[in-house]
Amino acid sequence: MATIKDVAKLAGVGNSTVSRFINGSGYVSNESRKRIEEAIKTLEYVPNESARAFKLQDNKIIALFLPCSFNPFFSELGFYIEDELDKNGYKMMLCNSGGKIEKEISYIEMLKQKKVEGIIGISYNDIDEFIKEDMKIVSIDRHYTANIPCVSSDNFQGGVLAFQELYKNKCKKIAYVGTYCENIQTEISERRKGFVEEAKKNNMDVIIFLEPDPIRDLHSFLNQFLILYKDVDGVFVENDDIALHLYNKARDNGLSIPKDLKIIGFDGQIKHKLLSPYLTTIMQPIEQLGRVSVNILLDMINGKQVNRSTVLPVQFLKGDTTL
Amino acid sequence: MATIKDVAKLAGVGNSTVSRFINGSGYVSNESRKRIEEAIKTLEYVPNESARAFKLQDNKIIALFLPCSFNPFFSELGFYIEDELDKNGYKMMLCNSGGKIEKEISYIEMLKQKKVEGIIGISYNDIDEFIKEDMKIVSIDRHYTANIPCVSSDNFQGGVLAFQELYKNKCKKIAYVGTYCENIQTEISERRKGFVEEAKKNNMDVIIFLEPDPIRDLHSFLNQFLILYKDVDGVFVENDDIALHLYNKARDNGLSIPKDLKIIGFDGQIKHKLLSPYLTTIMQPIEQLGRVSVNILLDMINGKQVNRSTVLPVQFLKGDTTL
Repeated sequence: MATIKDVAKLAGVGNSTVSRFINGSGYVSNESRKRIEEAIKTLEYVPNESARAFKLQDNKIIALFLPCSFNPFFSELGFYIEDELDKNGYKMMLCNSGGKIEKEISYIEMLKQKKVEGIIGISYNDIDEFIKEDMKIVSIDRHYTANIPCVSSDNFQGGVLAFQELYKNKCKKIAYVGTYCENIQTEISERRKGFVEEAKKNNMDVIIFLEPDPIRDLHSFLNQFLILYKDVDGVFVENDDIALHLYNKARDNGLSIPKDLKIIGFDGQIKHKLLSPYLTTIMQPIEQLGRVSVNILLDMINGKQVNRSTVLPVQFLKGDTTL
Repeated sequence: MATIKDVAKLAGVGNSTVSRFINGSGYVSNESRKRIEEAIKTLEYVPNESARAFKLQDNKIIALFLPCSFNPFFSELGFYIEDELDKNGYKMMLCNSGGKIEKEISYIEMLKQKKVEGIIGISYNDIDEFIKEDMKIVSIDRHYTANIPCVSSDNFQGGVLAFQELYKNKCKKIAYVGTYCENIQTEISERRKGFVEEAKKNNMDVIIFLEPDPIRDLHSFLNQFLILYKDVDGVFVENDDIALHLYNKARDNGLSIPKDLKIIGFDGQIKHKLLSPYLTTIMQPIEQLGRVSVNILLDMINGKQVNRSTVLPVQFLKGDTTL
């Protein structure tokens, strides 16, 4: 089997250049890059790390739980998690687990059997009893009874920022629209709490309009909201997806936005700038959430002490749906 | 270890009910569902299939290559592929390979070493020489020199439908905006061919405006197009993402859409109806693309004969960006 030295020799570059190329670290000129690629092909060279990583005895595999990988927030998060794992020689199994508790349980079983080395997860299923403190698991946006590390955005502060924008917009009647999870406590509810507490400080009431997650009929849910609360002039919506739906629904009902109704979302995914309308939103540091979660998990696997709670800052993004 | 029978006994339901619940097939009443969930938790039962599937000697793992999993089309496709694999007792490794040839090569090596049983892939890297005919690989949207199965949408027909819409809209000067891959031939180019050939039949010329994939500076690329071709009144864009960018860019330049410029995209992902504008587009059967690819691969793994080329029908979706 060809080695890195064979590739370097054939390509006429130094070993360290080939190493930088393979590991995607540091500068490699386009000319060298081309020659290395050709040498790799000619020699059918397989980078050592990947080959090493995949001896069966050390399965460098991490499982990722996402409720639904085609939700833009989750898919972006998953992208960065896979990228960070790859940089560290790990492969990633993806498990879409929305509403499928048995699927998550089967991965937890794989963890016990050491078929995967760890799990990173966003889960809305009721798996609390299956999660034990000694498991190599990092949770995103949710705390479990077992004291495992949790990484999340500063959801509470996001709620505070959202209120402040509606207040600045001189809204008279404001609402929070979102979901709740039966049985489990996710960090998502902090968005609502931050919003409500900041409103209280300013002597304003908040209409809370919730439905259990996942919303089964978003169309009816939002219609009902618009019919029941015709006089609401400012809404903080739990995520950008629902916020965009509300925007379209309100427009269909003849409302002018932001004139009649101000809307603020939450997430600020990469697509944010692409979409019309530009939603006013609270941006989560998605890339950082992913990379930090991976690094905490790898630290755990390597026997290091890690923080049990990591909260990353959010950012207010002004769009076209507030004044 | 608890068995399905223990779960059924504790839950007070029949074995077949538990089986239906675990496999997500057939009817299970809410009451039984609740009791089964409780029994599963109490007994720490792990569904048999998943446990069985993960004995090391039969690694029921498939690798999926996607250029970038947070592109909405790819993430939706990946979701259905994972779901179909799961139904068949397989796990999925996700490899984001955009521009990273060495990453794909390491998975091909894993395939040779039987660490994964097969690969499903959309790849824009120059890996042709690594793909051999006897490998368990299903390609989406691209043909390789080695005669491996390829699944794609009817891209050519999509181009035909796009032209017909612009023609019906009485466009006088039309363009195709998109990308090309150096060295490799993807099915994407069929969109352009269908569009150009249908235009020829109707004695119309098409301005072809292309840049190598991936586009490094989409902003400049689209600006240049709008400056060079001010008189173009109808554009067929290679995918919905670029089409949405063009829409925003054209609007920023003071154009009214669809009055001054008609825009048609390609993909029609699930988010289509959510976004404003509703883009006129050619919809790929994304779910079917994913599930069919999995089933072809599993047939190959099980030693069955499979079609080398599968073309699935596309559909025209009228939105707000044409008349």
